[in-house]
Amino acid sequence: MSNVIEALAAALGTQVRTGSDIPSRNHADASGLQPTQPLALILPQTTEDIAAALKICHQHRHPVVTQGGLTGLAGGAHPETGEIALSLERMNGIEEIDQASATLTALAGTPLATIQQAADEAGFLCGIDLGARGSCTIGGNIATNAGGNQVVRYGMARRNTLGLEVVLADGTVIRSLNKMLKNNAGYDWTQLFIGSEGTLGVITRVVIGLHPKPQGIQTALCAVSSFDDALVVLRKFQQAHPGRLLVFEAMWREFMTVATGICGLPAAFEAEHDVTLLIEADMGEDPAGTEAFSLLLGEFYEQNLIKDAVVAQSRAGRNRFWAYRETPYEYGRFLPEEIRFDVSVPLNRMTEAVEHLRQEMPRHWPDAVYVVFGHVADSNIHINVAIRDMDDGIKKGVQKLVYDLVSGLGGSISAEHGIGRIKRPYLPLSRTEPERELMAKMKQMLDPEGILNPGRVL
Amino acid sequence: MSNVIEALAAALGTQVRTGSDIPSRNHADASGLQPTQPLALILPQTTEDIAAALKICHQHRHPVVTQGGLTGLAGGAHPETGEIALSLERMNGIEEIDQASATLTALAGTPLATIQQAADEAGFLCGIDLGARGSCTIGGNIATNAGGNQVVRYGMARRNTLGLEVVLADGTVIRSLNKMLKNNAGYDWTQLFIGSEGTLGVITRVVIGLHPKPQGIQTALCAVSSFDDALVVLRKFQQAHPGRLLVFEAMWREFMTVATGICGLPAAFEAEHDVTLLIEADMGEDPAGTEAFSLLLGEFYEQNLIKDAVVAQSRAGRNRFWAYRETPYEYGRFLPEEIRFDVSVPLNRMTEAVEHLRQEMPRHWPDAVYVVFGHVADSNIHINVAIRDMDDGIKKGVQKLVYDLVSGLGGSISAEHGIGRIKRPYLPLSRTEPERELMAKMKQMLDPEGILNPGRVL
Ligand SMILES: Cc1cc2nc3c(=O)[nH]c(=O)nc-3n(C[C@H](O)[C@H](O)[C@H](O)COP(=O)(O)OP(=O)(O)OC[C@H]3O[C@@H](n4cnc5c(N)ncnc54)[C@H](O)[C@@H]3O)c2cc1C
Ligand SMILES: Cc1cc2nc3c(=O)[nH]c(=O)nc-3n(C[C@H](O)[C@H](O)[C@H](O)COP(=O)(O)OP(=O)(O)OC[C@H]3O[C@@H](n4cnc5c(N)ncnc54)[C@H](O)[C@@H]3O)c2cc1C
Repeated sequence: MSNVIEALAAALGTQVRTGSDIPSRNHADASGLQPTQPLALILPQTTEDIAAALKICHQHRHPVVTQGGLTGLAGGAHPETGEIALSLERMNGIEEIDQASATLTALAGTPLATIQQAADEAGFLCGIDLGARGSCTIGGNIATNAGGNQVVRYGMARRNTLGLEVVLADGTVIRSLNKMLKNNAGYDWTQLFIGSEGTLGVITRVVIGLHPKPQGIQTALCAVSSFDDALVVLRKFQQAHPGRLLVFEAMWREFMTVATGICGLPAAFEAEHDVTLLIEADMGEDPAGTEAFSLLLGEFYEQNLIKDAVVAQSRAGRNRFWAYRETPYEYGRFLPEEIRFDVSVPLNRMTEAVEHLRQEMPRHWPDAVYVVFGHVADSNIHINVAIRDMDDGIKKGVQKLVYDLVSGLGGSISAEHGIGRIKRPYLPLSRTEPERELMAKMKQMLDPEGILNPGRVL
Repeated sequence: MSNVIEALAAALGTQVRTGSDIPSRNHADASGLQPTQPLALILPQTTEDIAAALKICHQHRHPVVTQGGLTGLAGGAHPETGEIALSLERMNGIEEIDQASATLTALAGTPLATIQQAADEAGFLCGIDLGARGSCTIGGNIATNAGGNQVVRYGMARRNTLGLEVVLADGTVIRSLNKMLKNNAGYDWTQLFIGSEGTLGVITRVVIGLHPKPQGIQTALCAVSSFDDALVVLRKFQQAHPGRLLVFEAMWREFMTVATGICGLPAAFEAEHDVTLLIEADMGEDPAGTEAFSLLLGEFYEQNLIKDAVVAQSRAGRNRFWAYRETPYEYGRFLPEEIRFDVSVPLNRMTEAVEHLRQEMPRHWPDAVYVVFGHVADSNIHINVAIRDMDDGIKKGVQKLVYDLVSGLGGSISAEHGIGRIKRPYLPLSRTEPERELMAKMKQMLDPEGILNPGRVL
């Protein structure tokens, strides 16, 4: 055991810390698992340092957990007793913004917010955005194939990734800092590492594609009487204004009831409606675009597709609309202990999913407070369930209800947060045996000694 | 040898053909390689048939070449002596269009045009489009990660693919007919097969995402005096009208000279300009969008960014503009033997690339007719070179010139057509040794006996 630490210290000097020299922030990620001090913490500054470290751990068959910004919700970066934590925090910096190619090259430990700001200053937009932007790293975003609010427009992290540098388990460095949208020269091996949650290699450098900056963002809150109508609104909007939709979030009735009745926000509309939509679109520089946004909503109203709507007239108005969507961050103050799900459901089964919850939740747990909301254009919903005195038995019951439901409808037990440690027992609900066997082969191919994030994903 | 044929015939009956029962169309793809009769042709109708066939070939370690529409330009589907051809032509049919999810599920041998038409009839657009649409198959498109004219808007085949069913080399069937934009439940193994050119598995079923139908396509031909100006036009257009650009093709001076001087088209503009752009955008239903298109081009003109421009006023006008872009299909009638390249170059090195060709081509081959054109928004250019009495020596010389250039600038020797058999010797110019080693490991993992498309890609 200490052999490996000695070897690491000899190779990397003060980049290796042990015992109380390991800051407590490296004891846990955002998943809520019990904090655990890793055996050692490595704080490398270069790809070569990481290659040297992994080579040693590989030789010693010693488990390593890779840590980015530690905002992950699946326990992927959470250390287990005896593991060596490899933090990317010193691999921080933007190396190039190529204006002609509209690309940004950065070290993997760079915080997402830093990248967003640099893109902005260069006149572009970074297509990856999520609530944890201040702390999460671009490497962690790509390792988890992170989503967020604007996936309907810019796609997941995968679609924004053009090139990667990765250190393999045995210390081999492999690099394709590709800047081009088209490159069919052999297998695109970078795809292997996107969304592999640190189990197949350590991402050290990334090239991401940048987007034009939105010029005229319009925001509306719309009430519809069913999810089917919401889908018609989605498709009609996309048809009328191709490529403009940035955000299409749905909040079901129960969500709005909690937002107003429990979190204390003012009612959004006079009447109660089954689904409230938060819609945001980039209508371009031209004022005609701005007008067209309201005009189209007016048409939807006349067609009885939407029951009510308000369009934000200012930044403050926009913030007021977003405040509804962000109430879940406040639940801790108002509700008993919660259990939160990040799942996806094919859009043609979404109503069924919600109706099933509405039937089963009160039947099993009469005082449960549950809400359904999320990035529905991407088929991604979040389900939060708060139950007073929730014990392990109840938790397991709720999990079983939700995961069986999702799996029965051909959905996914993880839409955007990944599998990590926490969802590993449920993987068979979304993946067949041949799929899991192939995943195991991929792991075996890239990490034959099983040193990288063991016990995560598979 | 005949053992394997006997076993196949026993399992698959009349689906197996040999000798003169093999139609000559299965002797070659569109790459121009010498037609070769395969040892046998299998015409399976179901995934299970394919699984049975591959299992037998795997046991006999007998090489198999998978054939889709045979429009490939890299020789991937071109049979070698002794290989068994597996054609997907009877795996033809659309299984589902899911309106709510905006997805289409089809058998892999379905022609792209059939899929495009079905999407259209259902009120959607298929984002994959290329010249060979009438003959190529959706399975072939995904196996080659095909591009085309509208990649700037809809991405390559990879981005349009949501789910796959694949038969592995040993006959195992693996299936994820996912319809959801977000699914981070474990490794997305489907990525392995996209762009693997039939060397890692046989794609049998696909789920693709559909897009809203363009409502107001505007087309313009614009003259600019440098590629740098073209890039400014590209970024300004994307900024002003986010998500609207469908086509951004560049044709350099020499291309237009051949189009007018040799192919006999009328001059597009009074003066000669360094780059002519073919721009197409979906400006939406609203007539204001149509106006905005011309207005923006007017602004570019006033800013001296574009030197001249014409906007199509009718379908006939649009066709006249596209006629320039399509002259390469006519070169056979007007020019001596040609050699054609499909490469990509980072956008910030594109001018360098063209200037290098302009210097070196005439120096080595004073009578060479060469043109540069392509999907520049995706960094993809095509280079066609026609030289009288081109022998193997000259061919090799031209190839060396182009591939060394591309590789020196950090480009790719294959932008959209793949590596197949034809570009295999050049792979090291675009991929480092660690990259090729990883590719070889991927091949070894999925096809340990090396029966699938041997000698292609790697
Ligand atoms: C408030 C909040 C909001 C969130 N919103 C969203 C959201 O909208 N969408 C979404 O998808 N997620 C969301 N998340 C989850 C989380 O932020 C993302 O998963 C994020 O991408 C993790 O990045 P990180 O740098 O913090 O990674 P970590 O938490 O440090 O690690 C996550 C996983 O990636 C691995 N990893 C990290 N860096 C690397 C690397 N360089 N190489 C290889 N593996 C690596 C780790 O081993 C671990 O398995 C949210 C989290 C919070 C706390
Ligand atoms: C006129 C013309 C224009 C073209 N324009 C473009 C363009 O704009 N962009 C572009 O990218 N390409 C273009 N191409 C090239 C070609 O059309 C594409 O590569 C196309 O995707 C090949 O499809 P196919 O069904 O004909 O495949 P095939 O030629 O039959 O096969 C191509 C490769 O894929 C493999 N394959 C085929 N089907 C499967 C399957 N079901 N499972 C596994 N492997 C399979 C084959 O083994 C082979 O390696 C063009 C070709 C022509 C002739």
